[in-house]
Amino acid sequence: MPRLVDHEVRRREITSAVRRVVVGGGLESVTFQSVAAEAGISVRLVQYYFGTKREFLLATHQSVRTDAGARLMRALSLLGPEASPREVVTTFLVEMLPLDDERREEAIVLGAFHAAALTGGGIAADETLAAPRELVALIAGQLRRVTDRDAVTPPMDPDLDAELILAAAGGIAQGMLPGYGTAEQAVQLVERLLDRVLGPESPGTTA
Amino acid sequence: MPRLVDHEVRRREITSAVRRVVVGGGLESVTFQSVAAEAGISVRLVQYYFGTKREFLLATHQSVRTDAGARLMRALSLLGPEASPREVVTTFLVEMLPLDDERREEAIVLGAFHAAALTGGGIAADETLAAPRELVALIAGQLRRVTDRDAVTPPMDPDLDAELILAAAGGIAQGMLPGYGTAEQAVQLVERLLDRVLGPESPGTTA
Repeated sequence: MPRLVDHEVRRREITSAVRRVVVGGGLESVTFQSVAAEAGISVRLVQYYFGTKREFLLATHQSVRTDAGARLMRALSLLGPEASPREVVTTFLVEMLPLDDERREEAIVLGAFHAAALTGGGIAADETLAAPRELVALIAGQLRRVTDRDAVTPPMDPDLDAELILAAAGGIAQGMLPGYGTAEQAVQLVERLLDRVLGPESPGTTA
Repeated sequence: MPRLVDHEVRRREITSAVRRVVVGGGLESVTFQSVAAEAGISVRLVQYYFGTKREFLLATHQSVRTDAGARLMRALSLLGPEASPREVVTTFLVEMLPLDDERREEAIVLGAFHAAALTGGGIAADETLAAPRELVALIAGQLRRVTDRDAVTPPMDPDLDAELILAAAGGIAQGMLPGYGTAEQAVQLVERLLDRVLGPESPGTTA
């Protein structure tokens, strides 16, 4: 195996271990020792790949964003170019919900980073803001595709509505994590959100 | 001072200290020692009032809910009985936003409890769910006051819309904490949310 690939595989093993440690005991339980033990490698090897705890925390945060982004892109490619703005945004939002173990792990890790950034632990807030800004832009781009014919009152404001949609979806996702509501209810809330912003779905709007 | 009052004052000093410790260093920095130091009292005295860490964490969570609830009730009483459903719900939601130091502290503490509950630290999720359920019921009660004349399509579903409103407001509040958007933008998002659920505000609807 080429050295670069090996390097990436090893980094991935470590960031995956960080995620599991966070899910098991919170960000405060993350140390070189606990991550090495979880990954089944030596502390020295973790230190070789990541010189500081901050480095592997940043890499873990980045890995969650990369995974979520790749999953979004896969889901969108399955939709195809004919998908309506509503179908695209629904796909975005449902992929963000913690509906399976993988997404639940991601949501817990992101929530832990969010809480820690506010209280001086973990990584700084600046480094966690890029992803929401990209998502708002993606959603706003879809909302701009909605024609005047489809728009409900009040008139569409793509940037503001995209902010609202992302904030609401984040609230729905985080609210689901402690067991407040089922997966079905979370999906229903996402549908309701889009009913409220884009108008109720009708058979003619998806073509 | 009567003994009961003294007892409550002392407990309040301790839970206030817990909040400041959480804001300063996260839930993981909360110990009998750090709380006693922050409150300026002895560890022994903290132990006299709260036998376990779990006890003072629960009391702190309860104190945030009590404070937020009391603030909501004060704000509502200022509105008066003639307030429209939209005015009442707007008041609820704006009071939940971290627009000043007090509410920012509350939002950070609740966020820290939320994250910790998911990873086995802090208090269990069950004990943090009562407040959202009460708020959903309060909001749904207001939505039921909206007449058919006022309702926009899709038809009002007070319970589902109340869940959506609370989830969205929670997302707006937590999104504001790391500096993603200003207070003005957060209030604007709340207004937009209610435009989307209740229809755009018009001068005639508040009477």
